[in-house]
Formats: sequence, structure tokens, C-alpha cells
Amino acid sequence: MSVSELSPLNSTSDLYPSRKGKPAKIITRQDPIIYADRPDTSVLNQEHLDFYQQNGFLVLHNFFSAEEIELFNEELSRLSGLSTKTADSRFILEKDCQNVRSIFEIHVISNVFERLCSDPRLTQLAKLILNDDIYIHQSRINYQPGFKGKGFQWHSDFETWHTEDGMPRMRAVSISIPLTANTPSNGPLMFVPKSHKHFLSCSAQTPANNFISSLKEQRIGVPNERHISDLVRQYGIVQALSQPGSIILFDCNTLHGSNSNISPLPRSNLFFVYNAVSNQLVKPYDEAPSRPEYLAARRSMRPLE
Amino acid sequence: MSVSELSPLNSTSDLYPSRKGKPAKIITRQDPIIYADRPDTSVLNQEHLDFYQQNGFLVLHNFFSAEEIELFNEELSRLSGLSTKTADSRFILEKDCQNVRSIFEIHVISNVFERLCSDPRLTQLAKLILNDDIYIHQSRINYQPGFKGKGFQWHSDFETWHTEDGMPRMRAVSISIPLTANTPSNGPLMFVPKSHKHFLSCSAQTPANNFISSLKEQRIGVPNERHISDLVRQYGIVQALSQPGSIILFDCNTLHGSNSNISPLPRSNLFFVYNAVSNQLVKPYDEAPSRPEYLAARRSMRPLE
Repeated sequence: MSVSELSPLNSTSDLYPSRKGKPAKIITRQDPIIYADRPDTSVLNQEHLDFYQQNGFLVLHNFFSAEEIELFNEELSRLSGLSTKTADSRFILEKDCQNVRSIFEIHVISNVFERLCSDPRLTQLAKLILNDDIYIHQSRINYQPGFKGKGFQWHSDFETWHTEDGMPRMRAVSISIPLTANTPSNGPLMFVPKSHKHFLSCSAQTPANNFISSLKEQRIGVPNERHISDLVRQYGIVQALSQPGSIILFDCNTLHGSNSNISPLPRSNLFFVYNAVSNQLVKPYDEAPSRPEYLAARRSMRPLE
Repeated sequence: MSVSELSPLNSTSDLYPSRKGKPAKIITRQDPIIYADRPDTSVLNQEHLDFYQQNGFLVLHNFFSAEEIELFNEELSRLSGLSTKTADSRFILEKDCQNVRSIFEIHVISNVFERLCSDPRLTQLAKLILNDDIYIHQSRINYQPGFKGKGFQWHSDFETWHTEDGMPRMRAVSISIPLTANTPSNGPLMFVPKSHKHFLSCSAQTPANNFISSLKEQRIGVPNERHISDLVRQYGIVQALSQPGSIILFDCNTLHGSNSNISPLPRSNLFFVYNAVSNQLVKPYDEAPSRPEYLAARRSMRPLE
């Protein structure tokens, strides 16, 4: 399918219905994966492009210097230190303790991460994949503290962003920046390769203010276990093992999650979600009130160079 | 240290004090690891013996045939099917759902597992390591169901068996029999290699009837996080990856645990704990009432051939 055959991206027609109270089902992806017609192979070489196209994610090693990672980690410590002292709802604590689980809108809270999200080394990757002007749809840090990290259930980000936030089409890419090693034993980010080509429509309807609990433990928008099993049987599971300095790109619809972390080694990853300007949010498809701006940018869509 | 230099094994003197309300500390192991003076290298070759001696665990691949594993899995399904229908306290359910977490005394409950624990291929390994007559101290199955497996915190079995059950010395070996693949992503058994040489004495005293909650989630007898971090910094973490048909031997004092399992693939491991007859249980060192027989054999110590 070429881009021109697609229905207009700002259309509110729902190509990916989910949480309508109907049985869960798998819908074939209707959207391109790499939008550029002739991607610039000086930004991503052909092997990388093919891998991302086929698998829905890509790890690039030695992307940032040790000095840069040290700077990001200092900023992370500073933000983390604020988490128990603030009533700021962008700081999400674990369900059953006071450990910080996630911090949202880090590109607004922090000058360091504001500069990072607009670093041309990152934005040129997002622009190559999305072939459009881009803006930050969401930014966050996910913590998996040593000994106590609770993990994240399998999910496609797009299922939530589409249903709860009104993101029309699959034209967004996440860049994850590990600030600690992701080892086999500390709850690394895991992907189901090739899952980005399948939209796992969910059954249960969104309850009011779902996000308040879902950010601590996702229960709605978690795909049917049979569907996950089907995809894993076909495609397996890949742990995105990496050292600080690597980055991990993944498509908005790639199924991912992580196990808990009992190892002493924390696992902290930054995430920047770049969305195409032509794919800006419309009315949420679940017809519920919009989620807060810090989860889904609706007004602050500053295009990035 | 040679075996003859040791104080008598049946002594009730406490070489490994723990949970006395004193600060947690690391005590150097006072006991041999492999007790046989001249181990039979037709049972375990020198490389295997050295590995076990140095690291406190050993994986042997292709130990059981596919037919045997199928038989064990059928028996596992049968037992698992009983778990929600029985009030038998040997069946342990997860803290916050009705999934089975562990079943104890499987060698008493099941004829199949009774035969398995006395299989000469297993008992000759235990006898070689312990250099004594042996009996089953404890047997269990640990489930990590797909999607929902909760994991097990870091612990040394010996800390509990010594403190709560009165096992005098480190002269017991566990043999784990994976009935499903232990992959990097389904919450595999993880060891801290070389940790068996260090006893991590714990601080908190045992509350009454601790075992009722500890079997669902261990909170007492979990070593100090700083001590675990120290050992992991020195020795790392090893995932005991294995396919059905493998067995995993590990010393009673090797630090082990597992992360949760969100993968669709269940991870179920049988465990048989062989203890030396000369190391039979005395009065619990925490001076609390003995735990039930199904957790720690005190009367039923049938020697195995």
C-alpha cells in the first residue's frame, strides 16, 4: 500500500476499533511502517531499515557518549529525588509502595531532557521513519528499581493512544534511551517482533478516569492472552539487551512489556514519542474525556527541527 | 578444611545464627561443598565437579528423555487440576489470585514423583555430593504460569531450613527438574554464582506462623539488599537456562530467585531436596514451633537407595 492510497490521516473514521465491548480480534495494520519513499541511508542504513520494517523495533548501540549518559543520569537522580516530595500528578508511584514508577512530560519538566528530545540525531531518525514534521506526543521515564521493579504488562502503545487519546493512525515512533544496562535478568524491555503488523483490538470498555490506575498497573487495553500467545508462537520474544549509550526505536504498535526486576541493578529507560504532525490527535475513539496533556499532547505540539 | 575438622554434624551449636534481631552480616561457610573425598567421576566428571564446587550450581542437559518429561507433565497437570478443589495446605495459591504457586510433598502426593525422587540417576548425584545416606527433606513444584507468574525473591534455602527447621549444617542439595523451557524471558531460575560460600545472616526475627505468608511472598529470611548487591557486584547473576530434560543441581546455600513471568510460556520446575542422614533436623534455631512435616521432613526420613 502506498501512502497516497490511505484515507486522509485526519479522518475520524476508526480503522482500529477497540474497547467497544465486542470480542477481541486481530486487525491487519492498514498503515505503512516506514513512511519515507526513499529513506536516507546515511541516517539509517539499509540493513537497519529492513530490520525495523520487518520487526517493528531496532537497537542502535554506542549512540550516546559516556559523558552524555552521565549527564542524563544526574538529571534522572534529581527528578527521582523530587518524586516523594511533590503532588505533581506527572510523577507516578508504584501501586503498593512509594517507589517512583514513571515520570511523564520530562521534556517539559527538565531542560536537559527538553534539549535531548530535540537533538537532531534523534529527530532525523523520527523524521526519516514518519516522513513528516514531528512533535513530542508523550515523554516519560520508566523506572525498574533494583529488587522491587514491578514490570509492565504486554501492550501496544498505539491501542491506548488511539482509543483513549484519539491518535488516528499508526504514524508515531518511540525512541527509548536506556540510562542503565538492560540485562537478561533486570527486567529488560521485551518485544514481540513483527507484532507491529497486527492490531490487537481489545474487548473491555474504558472505565472513567482509567489512566489513574492504568499508569500503575494496566488492566484495560491489555490484549487477549490467546492473541498474545498466537503472536509469540509465530514470532517469539526478543529482549532488547543494551548498555547505556544505546537507543531503541520501536513502532507505536509493537507489542512490548517487561518482567519484574529482583536484581540489584536498576533499569531506567527514557522514552520520547514522536508523532507526525499530520497524525495529530482527534476526539478520543472511546468518546471519553481527553486524558491530561502530559499523557497526550493536544495543545503543545511544537514542531521539532 | 577437611570433613574431620568439623564439629559433629548433629551438634545443636549454631554456626549460622540468623534472625536474632542483630544486624545482618555475612558469615563465611564452615562446611564442605562436595563431601566425597574422591568423587566418582563416572557419575559427575571433573569439569562438572569443579563447576559445582566453585559456583554452587550445575546444569546437566539431556538428562531425561522426552517421554519421561511428557509423563511428568501429565502428572503435573493432574495435580494442578486438584489445586482449586482442595483445602490441602500443601497446595499454595498466589497471594492475590487463585493460581497455584507451589505444591509441596509431591513425592508423597504422587506415585510418579515418588518414583522419580528415588530414581538412581538422581540419588547417585546427591550421594556423591553429600557422601552419606540421603533422604528427601522437602519436595515441591514451583509454578510460574504464563502471563501471571509472580517470581521468587532472592533467598538461600538453607537460611530458612536452618533457622525455621533446625537443619544443622550445609549438607543438602536441591535437584530442580524443569518441565518447561526456562528461557531468558519467562522468569527462569537465577543464581548468584559463588554465593554458596557466604551465609547471609538476616536480622528480623521470625514472626509466629511465618510460613503461611512466606510461601506466597517471602519477607523474612530475605537477605539484606546491601549484601545481595555486594555479592552480585563480585559474582554477577546467571540465569539457569534449560530445556525440558535438563536438571539443575544447586547447593542448599546458593542465593537464587526469579523474576515474574509475563510471557505466555509457563515455567514449571520440580524440586527435590536431598539431605544427608547425618544432617537430620534438630530443634529449630529460632526456637519457634517446628513447621509442618510437608515443608521439612522430621519423622519421615526414609533413606533412598
